[in-house]
Amino acid sequence: MAPVRLFTLCALALTVTTAHAAELAPKPTLADVIKASTAADWRPLDPANTVYLELPAGRVVIELAPVFAPRHVANIRTLVREKYFDGLAVIRSQDNWVVQWGDPDETTPKSFGTALASLPGEFTIPLAADRHFTRLPDRDGYAPQVGHSDGMPSARDPKAKQAWLAHCYGMVGVGRDNGADSGNGSALYVVIGHGPRHLDRNITVVGRVVAGMPLLSTVPRGPGAMGFFDKAGQQVPIASVRLADDVAPAERSELEVMRTDSVAFQKAVEAQRNRGGPWTKVAAGYIDLCNAPIPVRDSKQK
Amino acid sequence: MAPVRLFTLCALALTVTTAHAAELAPKPTLADVIKASTAADWRPLDPANTVYLELPAGRVVIELAPVFAPRHVANIRTLVREKYFDGLAVIRSQDNWVVQWGDPDETTPKSFGTALASLPGEFTIPLAADRHFTRLPDRDGYAPQVGHSDGMPSARDPKAKQAWLAHCYGMVGVGRDNGADSGNGSALYVVIGHGPRHLDRNITVVGRVVAGMPLLSTVPRGPGAMGFFDKAGQQVPIASVRLADDVAPAERSELEVMRTDSVAFQKAVEAQRNRGGPWTKVAAGYIDLCNAPIPVRDSKQK
Repeated sequence: MAPVRLFTLCALALTVTTAHAAELAPKPTLADVIKASTAADWRPLDPANTVYLELPAGRVVIELAPVFAPRHVANIRTLVREKYFDGLAVIRSQDNWVVQWGDPDETTPKSFGTALASLPGEFTIPLAADRHFTRLPDRDGYAPQVGHSDGMPSARDPKAKQAWLAHCYGMVGVGRDNGADSGNGSALYVVIGHGPRHLDRNITVVGRVVAGMPLLSTVPRGPGAMGFFDKAGQQVPIASVRLADDVAPAERSELEVMRTDSVAFQKAVEAQRNRGGPWTKVAAGYIDLCNAPIPVRDSKQK
Repeated sequence: MAPVRLFTLCALALTVTTAHAAELAPKPTLADVIKASTAADWRPLDPANTVYLELPAGRVVIELAPVFAPRHVANIRTLVREKYFDGLAVIRSQDNWVVQWGDPDETTPKSFGTALASLPGEFTIPLAADRHFTRLPDRDGYAPQVGHSDGMPSARDPKAKQAWLAHCYGMVGVGRDNGADSGNGSALYVVIGHGPRHLDRNITVVGRVVAGMPLLSTVPRGPGAMGFFDKAGQQVPIASVRLADDVAPAERSELEVMRTDSVAFQKAVEAQRNRGGPWTKVAAGYIDLCNAPIPVRDSKQK
């Protein structure tokens, strides 16, 4: 019964009963939408804003968001170019929360080189600076408006004239101490559980993992408080972190992201928002910001 | 700078600037609420509705929800008592989606014994049957009302007079084929990513993992379609699955769950909904159902 494996939450070799409930009308699935998309619906990653986090198990590709965190992104680029992260480690893995990487040595920390040691928080930006926002159709609990800006889940408050990136699965943020200006991009985390949207506007969010999430999300959880590792042997060493710009073209990950201001993306969202076809019995008629799919593909396989 | 590790998303040894933004008033944290709770705020797990999934790395504890899925829970109890799951495996791990376990042998599947091979879906129950619902204060996108029923995230539609369990992180559901009546509890999955609430009312949800989530959430993702493992060596073998009732008292996990109809639980939710204190700069003023904490503790350590 191989076809069983095609269904979303299929079981194994179970008896298929034909007398099931009435079926919803077939609708394009996410796979259908991707298949029907054209080259204009996709954009390549900008090598100047793409970071490769090289772990023993492979590469994590992070797209930076300079529009939302210009100073932190610039500082991270400096840290990366001066090889700050090389030899550091994944130091924290907390279930349904975050995986974090940075300097494991608290007593004799590595020099930040020419990068700044701290920066004012970039928790929100002026609404006018968020120029490529595409709003989702549904209301949100955490913000007056939500949608996507250049491939990132984002939120807006028109009254406060602010926009910000949202803490969804795979989003990358800047660890900080109590001070809003105590972070600098040297300690970064990625969301690995249900989107902790209550952190929105409290943290500088600098980008999104577009490939390699499993390399971070499956790091064994740390036994210490908040998922920190107790012993050096538990940490995952970072071989290197590089800007794609500084990597030979042949060694780059050739990824494309679906443009979130395209009609194809609207269709991709709708495919999740109101599923059709034989498996679904009740279409949700709603989509949570963090459940909206942001398709990524290998441009060599398109 | 050891105290830095106490903060929610703290960095490492960063310079703490004292001239940061105005602080929010201190408020009880989740830890404060748990510390201030009394014995009456907690309930033990019912051994007749508690399942131990024994994996090589340790035990996963699942609380069943007989009120929401009486027939499936009864069938799962039969499968467990007849040792159906012993020797089966975790066969699927799909990032930001689910980890699933069941029979890896599609060609010569294991007998269900005296358990039923299929059951009508229990996707919703009559509203009147959900007798311990405590509503959350905020609106939800997927349902007219959301809250908690006996320790499980739940949703309700008063007009349709229906209630159901919600697909939040850690919730356990019954894999099925296209037919609403094609599942029987022999293939189970747990949510390991952002809550796929669009599955609500499409799946029989049978319970919640109350301990051991990291043993499932960190299973390396499967390379096959939908995260299925290609080769037997990738699967995680299941040593045994037992009802706590059938395990010697000395070998049981002595866990207690905070009563979700208690004042302490309301305070726990509020601690997440509106954080105070020196770290938080903006309190969310909202809580998503799947972000509400459901505290669990070891009764021996209380």
